[in-house]
Amino acid sequence: MNSQPTVKPYVIGLDLGGTNSVFGIVDSRGEIKATTAIKTQGYATVEEYVDAAVAALTPIIEAVGGLETIKAMGIGAPNANFYKGTIENAPNLSWAHNDIVPLGQMFSERLGDIPVALTNDANAAALGEMTYGVARGMKNFIVLTLGTGVGSGIVINGQLVYGHDGFAGELGHVIMRRENGRKCGCERTGCLEAYCSATGVARTAREFLANSDEPSLLRDIPAASITSLEVSLAAEKGDALAIRVYNFTGEMLGEACADFAAFSSPEAFIFFGGLTKAGDLIMEPIKKSYDEHVMPVFKGKAQFLISGLDGSSAAVLGASAIGWDI
Amino acid sequence: MNSQPTVKPYVIGLDLGGTNSVFGIVDSRGEIKATTAIKTQGYATVEEYVDAAVAALTPIIEAVGGLETIKAMGIGAPNANFYKGTIENAPNLSWAHNDIVPLGQMFSERLGDIPVALTNDANAAALGEMTYGVARGMKNFIVLTLGTGVGSGIVINGQLVYGHDGFAGELGHVIMRRENGRKCGCERTGCLEAYCSATGVARTAREFLANSDEPSLLRDIPAASITSLEVSLAAEKGDALAIRVYNFTGEMLGEACADFAAFSSPEAFIFFGGLTKAGDLIMEPIKKSYDEHVMPVFKGKAQFLISGLDGSSAAVLGASAIGWDI
Repeated sequence: MNSQPTVKPYVIGLDLGGTNSVFGIVDSRGEIKATTAIKTQGYATVEEYVDAAVAALTPIIEAVGGLETIKAMGIGAPNANFYKGTIENAPNLSWAHNDIVPLGQMFSERLGDIPVALTNDANAAALGEMTYGVARGMKNFIVLTLGTGVGSGIVINGQLVYGHDGFAGELGHVIMRRENGRKCGCERTGCLEAYCSATGVARTAREFLANSDEPSLLRDIPAASITSLEVSLAAEKGDALAIRVYNFTGEMLGEACADFAAFSSPEAFIFFGGLTKAGDLIMEPIKKSYDEHVMPVFKGKAQFLISGLDGSSAAVLGASAIGWDI
Repeated sequence: MNSQPTVKPYVIGLDLGGTNSVFGIVDSRGEIKATTAIKTQGYATVEEYVDAAVAALTPIIEAVGGLETIKAMGIGAPNANFYKGTIENAPNLSWAHNDIVPLGQMFSERLGDIPVALTNDANAAALGEMTYGVARGMKNFIVLTLGTGVGSGIVINGQLVYGHDGFAGELGHVIMRRENGRKCGCERTGCLEAYCSATGVARTAREFLANSDEPSLLRDIPAASITSLEVSLAAEKGDALAIRVYNFTGEMLGEACADFAAFSSPEAFIFFGGLTKAGDLIMEPIKKSYDEHVMPVFKGKAQFLISGLDGSSAAVLGASAIGWDI
């Protein structure tokens, strides 16, 4: 609409993962104009990490027209504090464990003082869905990321929920089993994540196999190396035990979503990440269970959707969306 | 600050309960300048109810300087739809059951077209705490009303959470017991409200009495007529069974709040209504249980407070606060 030179058409997105740091320069339609990547680890200090990042970024920034075309930068990162622009005590980042690292400020200083904001990957996914994905135009929705863990990004009144301390939206850690719950990585027991993450699905499969003599394609695989992918492949072949694993997982997710509806009554629940590759195998039991468990006043009101962001670039798009939001 | 005639210094608050409708004219500090009341029931139509309300309101409006001093009206009512200004299918209101009643518009037309907004009593309580009570200055907090039922008003980023349909904030209906849960008024089982409302406390006492031979002051009362008040009186006298009833109730509320923290990480949980009269008897087990159950990242961050609104006028003050918000 506005073609004055002051309009900056791009944002930088950084998907800062435990292994790789992937950068994209993205326009307002979610088109990735240029991309680059570095390893996340192997730097003694955060300064060295930022040096390497800026060295990789500089040529792709030049390629789109220089820093004056860049509005802002968004970073999706573990243990990110949105309010402070910091990464705090991230156990899996060699240059940020037992430390509070002002990564936002450091990138801003090296990139011509553009605004830089950080949040965790699930919040980034929620902003990505709102900006480019299936939540465009929605003001109230919840993204649940079903990967190694279960993360969440909650949008209410068109705003991401950060809470008082910047760490709100940990729906993977509501308690679904108050007695005899599975041990969770957060050191408590019975969390949603302990059951409904990819690792939780594999664990459920191992439990079902151990607790019965039912024949299953999964018995051909050593129990310790079963993954959620293999469970879904077996289920697609009609394996009854594998189907029950997905039914169990979806049923619990549906129960959890029924509680979340009592909180914020969203227009949609959007599922993101590895487990969604199972498609109807996971989505149908979620919807069925939600309808059975939700409070009557909310029945039939919420949509259940799979992420609209392209899998391989979804995390970078999500991170870039933070940049449009600041 | 501003004494120009265009400043309207008052709002009308209406606490529309199942029995009485209490009106107050309130200034911005929460001082009630004038008050009146009518019966809620006994009218054949909503028109007759509004006629009676306006007849009662007119003299107190005149007493504060006439309609030109009134900025708006807020109504706290059951089954209120904030977005539409309606009361929808309220089973306990003779002139609004099986019907959608545009009460906001009707009052507005009769009161010189001032803006009128409705919400439920728990949301009104949350706005009341933010406007006049212990949540002044807070942007993220949750009010839990512990009365006949358990209601909630959730504030995030300084805004009340209404959700996509206007009915968000039903935290009394998250599921705390997924197996063998108590039947709840919402027709499901295991809801927080079935345990932690005033009626839930009385029910817990009856269960504890029935399941043991333990001596208790409560055995002097016919089981069917035990109330939460009598349980708290017995507990204050050192009755071990009654104390266990409050410990059980507080423990479950603390567990529930730990889940709510994972959602919105509030600065404070504020408790409102009848059960809070039990003071430390209920608040201490809540805090202890919360600390035991909350995710480590949230530990020690939230305050646990009792409502700062005067009990007898709290509901009217809460309702009036809606008026400042529109």
